[in-house]
Amino acid sequence: MEQFCFGVDIGGTGIKVGLFNMAGDLLEKWQIDTIKTGNGKDVLKDAANFIAIKSKEKGFTKEEIIGIGVTLPGPVKDNGDVLELANLGLGHFNIEKEMSELTGLKVKAGNDANVAALGEQWKGTGKDYENMVLVTLGTGVGGGVIHNGRILAGSGGAGGEIGHLPVNYNEKEVCGCGKRGCLEQYASATGIVRLAKQALEKSPKGSLLSNEENITAKLIFDLAKQGDKLALNIVDEACRYLGIALAAVAQVVDPEAFIIGGGVSKAGDILISNIKKHYTPNVMDALKDRVFAIASLGNDAGIYGCARLILS
Amino acid sequence: MEQFCFGVDIGGTGIKVGLFNMAGDLLEKWQIDTIKTGNGKDVLKDAANFIAIKSKEKGFTKEEIIGIGVTLPGPVKDNGDVLELANLGLGHFNIEKEMSELTGLKVKAGNDANVAALGEQWKGTGKDYENMVLVTLGTGVGGGVIHNGRILAGSGGAGGEIGHLPVNYNEKEVCGCGKRGCLEQYASATGIVRLAKQALEKSPKGSLLSNEENITAKLIFDLAKQGDKLALNIVDEACRYLGIALAAVAQVVDPEAFIIGGGVSKAGDILISNIKKHYTPNVMDALKDRVFAIASLGNDAGIYGCARLILS
Repeated sequence: MEQFCFGVDIGGTGIKVGLFNMAGDLLEKWQIDTIKTGNGKDVLKDAANFIAIKSKEKGFTKEEIIGIGVTLPGPVKDNGDVLELANLGLGHFNIEKEMSELTGLKVKAGNDANVAALGEQWKGTGKDYENMVLVTLGTGVGGGVIHNGRILAGSGGAGGEIGHLPVNYNEKEVCGCGKRGCLEQYASATGIVRLAKQALEKSPKGSLLSNEENITAKLIFDLAKQGDKLALNIVDEACRYLGIALAAVAQVVDPEAFIIGGGVSKAGDILISNIKKHYTPNVMDALKDRVFAIASLGNDAGIYGCARLILS
Repeated sequence: MEQFCFGVDIGGTGIKVGLFNMAGDLLEKWQIDTIKTGNGKDVLKDAANFIAIKSKEKGFTKEEIIGIGVTLPGPVKDNGDVLELANLGLGHFNIEKEMSELTGLKVKAGNDANVAALGEQWKGTGKDYENMVLVTLGTGVGGGVIHNGRILAGSGGAGGEIGHLPVNYNEKEVCGCGKRGCLEQYASATGIVRLAKQALEKSPKGSLLSNEENITAKLIFDLAKQGDKLALNIVDEACRYLGIALAAVAQVVDPEAFIIGGGVSKAGDILISNIKKHYTPNVMDALKDRVFAIASLGNDAGIYGCARLILS
C-alpha cells in the first residue's frame, strides 16, 4: 500500500495545500482562499474539507494518509498549543487537536516561518545542515531556527522571531509589532523602501532613484547592481542591520548556515556578500566561517516543512 | 549496589571535582590546581588521576561509578569534539574519548557555561523551566541556553556565547575576543568598572565614587543602592545593554526564564529590576512576561551540570 501525507500552509490570505509521497516528493499542490468570516476556526474547517475532497478524488482510504502537517501565521508550541492568533481572530486552542478532530488524521503543526525553515533544511538549500537558520525577507522579516534537524519553537512558540530582534536603539518610528528598532524595519521589502525614502529626503538628487515614483526593494537592488551610489548605500544599510542581527543569532545558537529566502532574496549575490561583510566583524572567531546561501523552495518551503513534520 | 558519578569542572586556574549519588545529591567536593606545564592534555591526566585516587579512597569498584561529566573552558560540540582550546594550549581533540581512555569510564562533556546552565536548570533556580538561559556576570560574561531540558551547543559548540553578542556598533575599544561592542564590554564586572571610569572622566565630582581608588562592580552596585546618582547611571547603562542582549536572545530561543549568575549577580534585586526595565520594551508582546531570577548554585553549578550530563 502506497502512503501519502498532506501539508497545509495557512496564511492570512491563502491556504496552500500539498500532497506528498513517503519519499517527500511534492506530487500536487493547490491554493484556496483564507475566508475569515465568522469564527476564525472556519479556516480550519475549510482546510479540513478541502483535504477530504481531494482524498475522495484520489480514492484514498484513511490508512493511506499517514497525517497532515499544518502551519499557522503565529507562535505555535511544540505540542500544538496556540495562545493567540490575532490575524485569524483566534484565542487559545490546540491546532493539532482541532485539526485531528476535524479530519480523523494525525496532525503535527508549527509556526509558518519555523516550518518553512524545516522545509528548506529537508529539501532545499539547507539540506546539508542539521543546524541552520532560515531568514525570510518579504513584506516582513520571518525566521526559523533548526537545531539538530528539528524546529526550535521555544517555550511559547516564538522561537526564531528574528524579525523583531532589536538592532537600532534610536529608532523613532514604530514597528508593526508595537516596539521600535526591529530588524524588520530595515531589512524587509517595506523596510528597505523606507530606508530609500529617508535617503532621498537627505539627498534628493543625483541618483537613478530620484525620479522614481514607485520605489520597490527590487528596483533598489537592481540600481545598486548598476552602481548607483545611493542605492548601494541603502543596500549596505539594510545589510548592516541584517549582518548584526545574524551575528547575534549566531552567538546564541551557532548554526552551520544562514539560508536567506523571501522576495528580497531574489537579489542574490549582492545581498549575500553585503550581509557577510557586516556579519563577519560582529561574531567571535569560532563563528566567522559560516555558510550564507539563497533559499531554493520559494513559496513551497512551508508545505515541504509540513510534510517533514509528519515524515520525520 | 549504590552507584555514583563524578563532575569535573576544568577551568583555567582550578579543577573542581564533585561526587554525586544517583539522586543528584552533591556528597563531597574538592578543588585542585590547573597545572598547564607541558602538553595541555596533562590537565586531563591530572583530573583522571585525582578521580582514580578518590575512587580508591572510597573503595569504589568500576561498576559503582556510572560515569564522569566534564566541562572545558571553550566550545565543545554535542559529541565531545573540541576544535581548539586556546587557554589550555590544546588543538583538535575529543574530550569524551580522551577522558574515557584515561579513566575507563563513560564520559560526557560540554562547555563550562553551558554545563553550568544545565546545573542551574536541574538543581538551581532554573529547576521549574525546561527552557531557560543562564547568564553569568563575572570577569567576563558567559551564557548557556537550555532547550527542552538539554544544552543547546550548536553546530560548533559555541551556542550560548552571549558575552560576545554585538550590542554597541560605535565602540572604539577592543573586547578580549578581538571585536568591538560585545555585551561583555559593558556587563561583566570588568566592563561595569570600565563604564564607571568613563563616567568619572566626564563627571569627576559629586559622586561617592569620585574619591575611590579601587572601584569594583560591587562598590558601584552598593553605592547605587544608597542612591548615588552616578552609580545609578552606571548600573542603568550596564543593564540597558544586558536588557537589549537578552531581548535578542529571547527573540531567537524564547526561553521561559533568564537566570543571572556570577559574582555581579550578588547585587540582587537592583540588577534584576534594571535588566527587566530594558528587556521589556525590546521584545515582542508574546515574550514580555518572562521570569528573571538570580542563580542559586554559585560555583557549584558546573559540577551539578556535569552530574546531570551523566544522570539524564
